Amino acid sequence: MSSNSNVPSNKDLLAKIVDALPHTTPFKAPEAIEVELGRTFMLRLGANESNWGCSPLAQRAAEDIASHLFKYGDPQSVELRTLLSKKLNYSIDSILIGEGIDGLIGLIIRAFINPNDHVITTHGSYPTFNFHANGFGARLIEIPYAGDQIDLDGLLSAAIQYQAKLIYLANPDNPSGTAYDRHTIELFVAKIPEGCLLILDEAYADFMPNTQLAEIDVYTSRVIRLRTFSKAHGLAGARVGYALAHPNYIATFHKIRQHFGVNLAGQVLCAASLRDAAYIEQVTKEVAEGRAEYYQLAESLGLRAIPSSTNFVTIDVGSIEKSIWWVKRLAEEGVFIRRPGTGALSQCIRITVGTRPERALLAEIMRKIHAEG
Amino acid sequence: MSSNSNVPSNKDLLAKIVDALPHTTPFKAPEAIEVELGRTFMLRLGANESNWGCSPLAQRAAEDIASHLFKYGDPQSVELRTLLSKKLNYSIDSILIGEGIDGLIGLIIRAFINPNDHVITTHGSYPTFNFHANGFGARLIEIPYAGDQIDLDGLLSAAIQYQAKLIYLANPDNPSGTAYDRHTIELFVAKIPEGCLLILDEAYADFMPNTQLAEIDVYTSRVIRLRTFSKAHGLAGARVGYALAHPNYIATFHKIRQHFGVNLAGQVLCAASLRDAAYIEQVTKEVAEGRAEYYQLAESLGLRAIPSSTNFVTIDVGSIEKSIWWVKRLAEEGVFIRRPGTGALSQCIRITVGTRPERALLAEIMRKIHAEG
Repeated sequence: MSSNSNVPSNKDLLAKIVDALPHTTPFKAPEAIEVELGRTFMLRLGANESNWGCSPLAQRAAEDIASHLFKYGDPQSVELRTLLSKKLNYSIDSILIGEGIDGLIGLIIRAFINPNDHVITTHGSYPTFNFHANGFGARLIEIPYAGDQIDLDGLLSAAIQYQAKLIYLANPDNPSGTAYDRHTIELFVAKIPEGCLLILDEAYADFMPNTQLAEIDVYTSRVIRLRTFSKAHGLAGARVGYALAHPNYIATFHKIRQHFGVNLAGQVLCAASLRDAAYIEQVTKEVAEGRAEYYQLAESLGLRAIPSSTNFVTIDVGSIEKSIWWVKRLAEEGVFIRRPGTGALSQCIRITVGTRPERALLAEIMRKIHAEG
Repeated sequence: MSSNSNVPSNKDLLAKIVDALPHTTPFKAPEAIEVELGRTFMLRLGANESNWGCSPLAQRAAEDIASHLFKYGDPQSVELRTLLSKKLNYSIDSILIGEGIDGLIGLIIRAFINPNDHVITTHGSYPTFNFHANGFGARLIEIPYAGDQIDLDGLLSAAIQYQAKLIYLANPDNPSGTAYDRHTIELFVAKIPEGCLLILDEAYADFMPNTQLAEIDVYTSRVIRLRTFSKAHGLAGARVGYALAHPNYIATFHKIRQHFGVNLAGQVLCAASLRDAAYIEQVTKEVAEGRAEYYQLAESLGLRAIPSSTNFVTIDVGSIEKSIWWVKRLAEEGVFIRRPGTGALSQCIRITVGTRPERALLAEIMRKIHAEG
C-alpha cells in the first residue's frame, strides 16, 4: 500500500481496544470459500439456514416490497413488537428488535462492559459472542464443554469466581446442538449471581417443543433472551432478531442502538412470517424427520451423531484431522458444511438439516466419501 | 416496573460511558408522530427519502427476492463492491459496505475514539454523528454555521486546537442543504492535520453535478468518504451505505464490524440500482426541478429558501417559534416535515422535494397555512 508520509499510520489513530484486536472474523463466508474452490456449492448445509425458505405469507408480503423501500423502516418496529408481544406474552417495552442476534450481542456487550470486565462463555460455542466481547475489551473466560453439553455449573462457578458481568449461554447450543430442558434452564436462571446478567441465546428455540421452553419473567430475572428469524422462519437474509429483557435494559439499549438499523423489508417479512405459525410448525416437523435421517446416516457410517434440538446435527468423526478432511472432501463434492473450529467438539462436523432431496443427495455423497476414507 | 430485589439496578451493571448517556434519540420517527397525532401522514416530506421510489431494475430484482432470503447475505458484499469499484474507480479493498451511513459512522467512531478524545462537527448538522460520538465517550466540539454554510476554517482551527481525532463534514450538508464545490473540498482535505481524520458524509452527493464531486485519493488522504443508497437511489428501507477509505482503515473496520450485518435484499436491490444510472439521472433532474419550485413557493410566501444541493430545501421562516408552528400546522394538515432542532438554522423548516403532484399539494397547503399566520 501507499508509503506516502501524509497518511497517518493506522496505529497512531486507532482506539486502543481496536488496535489490540487481531485481524480475525467469526466465520468465513460460503461465498468466499466458493471463490477459493473456483466452484459454486450444490448443497448449502453449513450456515444452519432453513432451506425450505420462508412462509408463503412472507413471500406474498415481499411481492410489493420494492415499492415501499424508498422509506426508512419504522425505528420502533411497532408492528413486529406488537405481534411478538401477543405471541410470547411479553410486554411491548420488554421487546427490542435488532439487526439479528449478532447485532444484539454486540449491543448488549457494549451496554454493559467496561474494558477488562469479565464475561463467561463455553469454549467452542458460538464465536460471535467472543468476537464482540473481545471487540469491546472484555476478559473472556471460556469453560470447556462437559461431554457434548454446556457445563452449567462451570459457567456459574466461573461467574462467581471472576465476578463476571455477563454469562453467554446458547440453548439449544451451537455447535453441539444439545439443549437443556426448561426446568434445568429455569433453575440456572435463578442462580445467576448478583451483578451478573445471562445472555440466553435462543436462536434455535423454534426447533424445541414449546413445552420445553423455559418460562422466564424478565421483570424479576437477570436474563436477556435472544431470538431470531434467521433459523426456523427461513429469513436469515432479512437480518432481524429480537431481545426480551427488563424494560430498564431495553431503555438502555435505546441510548446507543442504531435507531434506523432494521431494514424495512426485514420488518415486513418477519411480521408476515409471525402470522403463519402453521408453516413454522411444518418446517420444524420436517427438520425433526431430517435429524432422524442424519442420525441413521451417521450410524450407518459408524459415526456418532450428537442428539440435536436444532436444525443441524453435529457428528463426531473421530479426530480433528478427520473432521478437516470431511469438510474438505464434501466441499470438493459441492457440499458446504462447517466444523467446530475449536474446543472439545473440533473432531466433529456440523451439518444443517436440508430438504428431503438435499438429504438424499448428501447421504449418497457421504457414503461415497466414506468408502474412500 | 418491578421492585423485586433480585433484579440488579441498571446502574450497577452498565458500562460507565453508557450509564452517563441521556435517554435521547437522534430523530423521532414519523410513525411515532402519527401515533401521537392519531392520523396517518398524507405527504411524507420529512426524512429526505426519494418519493419516486427505486429503479425499475431494483423493483424487478425484488420480485423473486423472498425465495432467496433464507440465506445470509454475502458478508463481503463482493457483487456490490465490484460494481462500486468499477463505477467510482476505487480499489475493491478501499470499499466497505455497511448498514447505512448511520451504521458506518458508529463503526468509524468506535474504531478511532478512546474515551475523551475530541471530535469536531458543526452545531446543528447531522445529529447521528453526535449521537455516536457521545455514545463512545468522545468530547464533542461543535462549531457554529457561518451563515447558511459549514465554517470550514472553524472546523480546521478547532481540530488543531483540540488535537481532534475526527472531523465530521457533510457535503452537501444536512440540514442546510448547502455544499462546497470540489476545489474547496479538495483544499480542505489537504489541510486535515496530522493525527486527524475527516469523515466526509456524502449522503446527498448524487444530487450534485458529477463535475462538482471532489477527487480524493484515499491512499494519500486523511479522509473516509461515506455514501448511501437511501437518498437518490430510493432505497432508504434497504439500509445500505458504503465507506471509501484507505485499505488499512477498511481492514481495521473488519476487526469489529457485524460481518453478516448487511441484509441480502438490500445487497441485491442496491446492486440492481447501480446498474441503472439513467434512472438516478432522471430522479436527480426531477429533484432539481422540484427545488426550483420550492424556491419560488418560498418567495411567494415572503420566505427565504437556502439554495440546496440536495433533495430537500431548507426555508427560513423568521423565528424558532414560527418554525415550530409551521411543523405543527403542516402535521395537522397531514404533511410530515422536520425542522433543524438546534443551532443557527433552528428558525428554518426542512422540506423534502416530493414528486410533482406532491409538490402541488404541498404548495396549496402551505399557502393556506400562510394565510392564517
